[in-house]
Amino acid sequence: MIHHSPLDNVRVILSHTSHPGNIGGSARAMKTMGLSSLYLVNPQSFPDNEAYVRATNARDILDTAVICSTLDIALQDCVLAVAMTARARELTHPVLDTRQAAQKLVAIATKSPVALVFGRESSGLTTAEVTKCQLTVHIPTNPVYASLNLAAAVQIMCYELRMATMDSECKPPRHEMQQLASLNEIELFYQHLEQALIAKKFLDPQQPKRLMQRIRRLFSRTTLEKEEINILRGIIHAFEKEEP
Amino acid sequence: MIHHSPLDNVRVILSHTSHPGNIGGSARAMKTMGLSSLYLVNPQSFPDNEAYVRATNARDILDTAVICSTLDIALQDCVLAVAMTARARELTHPVLDTRQAAQKLVAIATKSPVALVFGRESSGLTTAEVTKCQLTVHIPTNPVYASLNLAAAVQIMCYELRMATMDSECKPPRHEMQQLASLNEIELFYQHLEQALIAKKFLDPQQPKRLMQRIRRLFSRTTLEKEEINILRGIIHAFEKEEP
Repeated sequence: MIHHSPLDNVRVILSHTSHPGNIGGSARAMKTMGLSSLYLVNPQSFPDNEAYVRATNARDILDTAVICSTLDIALQDCVLAVAMTARARELTHPVLDTRQAAQKLVAIATKSPVALVFGRESSGLTTAEVTKCQLTVHIPTNPVYASLNLAAAVQIMCYELRMATMDSECKPPRHEMQQLASLNEIELFYQHLEQALIAKKFLDPQQPKRLMQRIRRLFSRTTLEKEEINILRGIIHAFEKEEP
Repeated sequence: MIHHSPLDNVRVILSHTSHPGNIGGSARAMKTMGLSSLYLVNPQSFPDNEAYVRATNARDILDTAVICSTLDIALQDCVLAVAMTARARELTHPVLDTRQAAQKLVAIATKSPVALVFGRESSGLTTAEVTKCQLTVHIPTNPVYASLNLAAAVQIMCYELRMATMDSECKPPRHEMQQLASLNEIELFYQHLEQALIAKKFLDPQQPKRLMQRIRRLFSRTTLEKEEINILRGIIHAFEKEEP
């Protein structure tokens, strides 16, 4: 049985793209994040060699891209369409942030096709196009320089979609896969170190100040592994020995 | 009074970039998200017209980019360096996901400079370069096509950083309010320890195995404070002294 990802149900629609390089860059961005369904509404130049150059090994996505004459055709069968806009609009749709939108899209895409709609490089989506969508999403940008490249905007949304699919499969970081030291082993390390420091007169047991507390605080932040305790105790042992 | 954003303290370091277009694309990606500090370690071709074309109106970031001959120079003054890697490594640093890393970077950047380090387009960062960093971050990608464009990877991390600054509850954890050790101070501590271990014959410079790598990995997880480096070096110094 083939495992289907909700990302298979997310369609990226690029409307009236001027630069074929951006179509290729968008295809690459999609494929790196596991999306594959690309729809092009009236692209200015496609197929085009520049698109294939920018796509590198995501050429298969360009080969299977669907070219449509209107946004209505591109949206066929979708149950939710999200308009990607750079500007605030006078009469806005409900606006979700990128993260909320990605979660909503992935949740719906487990069952039905959904679409992300991107407009022209120069002017974005027209008001008529936004009206065809149910939600508006604005990628947060620097207020003094909001000029996000089209493929970069596609990259960010596809990344958020992939992150949204991973939320449930959160795996422990690699570090926690190692064999961790027991509290008792850690305690024996501190005792060993303390005795060695007293022997070397670095620590005065009559006036310990807070030396051992500070050392404990440092190592408490690390979640020590068994192997690391062995190394640390080996080092103390080596330092304890007098030169022959 | 000028309002300073933590993003002003985040340095993007591109090491040995082959294609100047990617430098320009990265500059644009940074500026859209409000970052401005770009460092280039041995770029293959820079300044270069292609970089300026791809940067569009982010040319000011290219004009003020700092060109360095080594990663060490580029990292100067930073208290935290994050290695961006596409591959899992045998002996890894702690791995954070993009979102956790962005939160940590922004929290620390409220006080001190931090760096994001990106490697070559073809092969990423070298092991030696990763070793200079304290944390590793892997952008989640499609397992069958992980070929993220360099500028796209910069875009995703800068976006996550901007999102992290917008998280109003994002306050630095208590630990991060302490004065953190600089990377140079940490490096001197490792060198001091290594020399002491060689003198005590615990470490054979002919057969070092991976002892220092393991020790670096342990301490990299902690974000060491200046005060702690002083304690650790004091301990090594005490151990070095022979009994009177």
